[in-house]
Amino acid sequence: MNAKFQELKHRLAEIVDLRMISSLLDWDLQALMPPAGTPVRAEQAATVQRIAHERFTSAEIGRLLEELQPYEEGLDPESDEASLIRVAHRDWEKARKVPVELEGEMAQAAATALPAWVEARRNSDFAAFLPYLQRAVDVRCRYIACFDGDGPAYDYALDDYEEGMKTHEVDAVFDELKRELPALIAEARANPVDDSFLAGPFPIDKQRELNAVVLRQFGWSPDSWRFDEIVHPAAYHLATTDIRITTRYAEDSLESLFSTMHEFGHGLYERQVDAALERTPLAGGVSLGLHESQSRMWENLVGRSLPFLRWLFPRVQEVFPEQFGSVDVDEFYRAVNKIQPSLIRVDADQVTYNMHVILRFELEQEMLDGSIALRELPDAWGAKMQEYLGIDVPEDRLGVLQDMHWSGGAIGYFPTYSLGNVMSLQIWERIREELPDLDSQFEDGEFGVLRDWLRENLHRYGRKFTPQETLVRAAGAPLDPGPYIRYLKQKVAELAGAAA
Amino acid sequence: MNAKFQELKHRLAEIVDLRMISSLLDWDLQALMPPAGTPVRAEQAATVQRIAHERFTSAEIGRLLEELQPYEEGLDPESDEASLIRVAHRDWEKARKVPVELEGEMAQAAATALPAWVEARRNSDFAAFLPYLQRAVDVRCRYIACFDGDGPAYDYALDDYEEGMKTHEVDAVFDELKRELPALIAEARANPVDDSFLAGPFPIDKQRELNAVVLRQFGWSPDSWRFDEIVHPAAYHLATTDIRITTRYAEDSLESLFSTMHEFGHGLYERQVDAALERTPLAGGVSLGLHESQSRMWENLVGRSLPFLRWLFPRVQEVFPEQFGSVDVDEFYRAVNKIQPSLIRVDADQVTYNMHVILRFELEQEMLDGSIALRELPDAWGAKMQEYLGIDVPEDRLGVLQDMHWSGGAIGYFPTYSLGNVMSLQIWERIREELPDLDSQFEDGEFGVLRDWLRENLHRYGRKFTPQETLVRAAGAPLDPGPYIRYLKQKVAELAGAAA
Repeated sequence: MNAKFQELKHRLAEIVDLRMISSLLDWDLQALMPPAGTPVRAEQAATVQRIAHERFTSAEIGRLLEELQPYEEGLDPESDEASLIRVAHRDWEKARKVPVELEGEMAQAAATALPAWVEARRNSDFAAFLPYLQRAVDVRCRYIACFDGDGPAYDYALDDYEEGMKTHEVDAVFDELKRELPALIAEARANPVDDSFLAGPFPIDKQRELNAVVLRQFGWSPDSWRFDEIVHPAAYHLATTDIRITTRYAEDSLESLFSTMHEFGHGLYERQVDAALERTPLAGGVSLGLHESQSRMWENLVGRSLPFLRWLFPRVQEVFPEQFGSVDVDEFYRAVNKIQPSLIRVDADQVTYNMHVILRFELEQEMLDGSIALRELPDAWGAKMQEYLGIDVPEDRLGVLQDMHWSGGAIGYFPTYSLGNVMSLQIWERIREELPDLDSQFEDGEFGVLRDWLRENLHRYGRKFTPQETLVRAAGAPLDPGPYIRYLKQKVAELAGAAA
Repeated sequence: MNAKFQELKHRLAEIVDLRMISSLLDWDLQALMPPAGTPVRAEQAATVQRIAHERFTSAEIGRLLEELQPYEEGLDPESDEASLIRVAHRDWEKARKVPVELEGEMAQAAATALPAWVEARRNSDFAAFLPYLQRAVDVRCRYIACFDGDGPAYDYALDDYEEGMKTHEVDAVFDELKRELPALIAEARANPVDDSFLAGPFPIDKQRELNAVVLRQFGWSPDSWRFDEIVHPAAYHLATTDIRITTRYAEDSLESLFSTMHEFGHGLYERQVDAALERTPLAGGVSLGLHESQSRMWENLVGRSLPFLRWLFPRVQEVFPEQFGSVDVDEFYRAVNKIQPSLIRVDADQVTYNMHVILRFELEQEMLDGSIALRELPDAWGAKMQEYLGIDVPEDRLGVLQDMHWSGGAIGYFPTYSLGNVMSLQIWERIREELPDLDSQFEDGEFGVLRDWLRENLHRYGRKFTPQETLVRAAGAPLDPGPYIRYLKQKVAELAGAAA
């Protein structure tokens, strides 16, 4: 039995190697590849993905998993070994249901739609994008049809990003947000915050300096991390010991500073997965929601907190004396927490962000069940933006065409952003209870205790348990929007009080 | 038949993708990977190599090659299609002879020996390296034993780097070099050249600037090339449209300038392979000798030529006014062409370099046929250094331990360096005949005509023809040391005349 287990582990390790190599191919493409290399790189990436898929869905892996079932049943279910067999079996069953031709068609549709979306967004021309979007939705529906369950189609869309999460569970959370957030948005609107000093200019070499200071303090080190510039910031992991985060700079904004903290949060999750899980399918964050809980935590709960800003702001002033010489830390705190409805999701504040997500979640369900014709999306988008945020969408570029996700067939992805917000506060409330001293640590620029807590209670597990089990381990409770809503209410009240 | 050919091409394209990905893994490791990622990267690299080897040596590829034989015979042998089948068949026959376990053992032996060599060289401790070297030689002998030919073992060692080249052919060339070079070395010794102004200091950011100017002028462009810093400079190609050259800097030398021209020569060869060969096993330089002919050409025949230095030197003076304010271009020319025996191969001049190679070529043959015990290598090395270059080897660090090649089992590699020198002059003489205007072009910083000639007469062929056939196409004649010896004689006479 042990020989069979070693054989399974070896085969899975090869597949994980190939997947990590896919990440490297993507990172390299995005961060530094000479542009003329693009067409050949697309072929190289497709080859690796195809081989990884073929090898993983092979009959040999299935046979090994089958034969190892009794062995698994004799193990402690929390052991690395039992978890490996259990999770690999679940992944294998799911992957086997998707024909390799459909996998290829999905990749091909995504690759074709991406440049079409770039072009359509540039020209704010939804009609030009419509056939590509139609194909993306069609292919996504055929993918979903591979799974012969009873639930709504959207359950299967969600499952790719937040395994096991059901549409009705998201509904329950989002309904509560929809009940609570409008009043908060109205309150924030009535108490405007001055953030004019955040318009820069902030010379980019100075921003680089500042980001490096923050990353070092957070726990980034060149020994096992990189930090590069890129068009679409993201975090990549090629091993728990090779984490690559990225950012982009603009002269007229400090957005890169907070975006860098965000990517650090993603990277730290991967960095702190138990080294014993390296080169297994368990080495990685368990779901997009839990991943986002970590990025949002470092960006918002650490990065935009007053105690941390007491440590950071003198350094910001030192780097940008002209811009911040006459600003104090409280003004800076309010400015970087400003709440104000806006058109673009990625620029949205902590409160309104969720309304952008809810809008997409609602439209996506209609797209999949066919209750909306795709050509009606721009109007539906405009109506919801008016309803949820009270603003007009002047052109599709700033509305339905703003995100790349749908072009790649990633329908079901958006909800995880808000679920991440919700989870981050559940975990944060527990951390605050267990680490009452956190504020004074942040004021001193000390983050090791927080990092250790996160490793011990969340990161180290990797994919050993389901996302839901993992959340309970970290937060002590299943999904619950309560802590997040409490946090937002307090934030809005604080900002309103300060403004009044 | 056409469907079978497409099937073969598709399978080979996947294997080429995997090999290019191996290069990316290596480039990334060497150039920028966080160091803690090394152990996992080693596994990832081994996985890709193993899968590429398995897929290439598969029975399916053999069956397709077999079935396509009549198809090949009906094609023009110079066509891309016939060449693809012919070369793939030869590669497949050779690769099939090596058991996959031995492949793994070779990779493992090399991986283990490399750090042992680094350590042994640092401590100048040959005895510590001896067991690793013994294993490298043993494994290499077992590899050679896979090929059941009549020739000397060294023929098979050579074949991996210079396909089809025989030991007796190398002997013939090297015998002639051994006859001619000692007198040249003596003459150079009698007429010392002043190169004291090449000792720097040359601030590294200024060197970067200068290298960028030279590369742009040669024809490097960011569209399809990168240029990075690395510990062991080399050229990598990930596609004909993705060429990555590298260098390293030292404050006390301009070596990086010439090393960069050298790597440009390697890169240009890969860059100018016919785009129609992309993603086939034909896309790449045909042998190490021909590759080195191109790097040496750009480093020495262009880079150290007086006409080119007339273009370059004012720019060198502009970047380093203090160091070169009172030097003229003729003095600079003599200094960068200085001939003087020295201990280290990679630092050697154009004449003595070959004696370093001949020494290794002779020892390697004895290592493979067992006529020398490996423990005697340091003494044998010292004796030959005394005989060929008239200098003492004070410690093994500066002698037998200086090169990494043997630690990786690369026995048979060194001769290609001198063969490259020889070929470069054969090709160069033909270029000078066909492009009589070259000197004035170099004085104007114009290299497009040379690049075009090289593309048309050498680079575009990739691996379509054997190295010997390719040399004849480029140079108009088979291997012949005559042009190289003429060139060295003229160079030495010129330097002696100037010194006198």
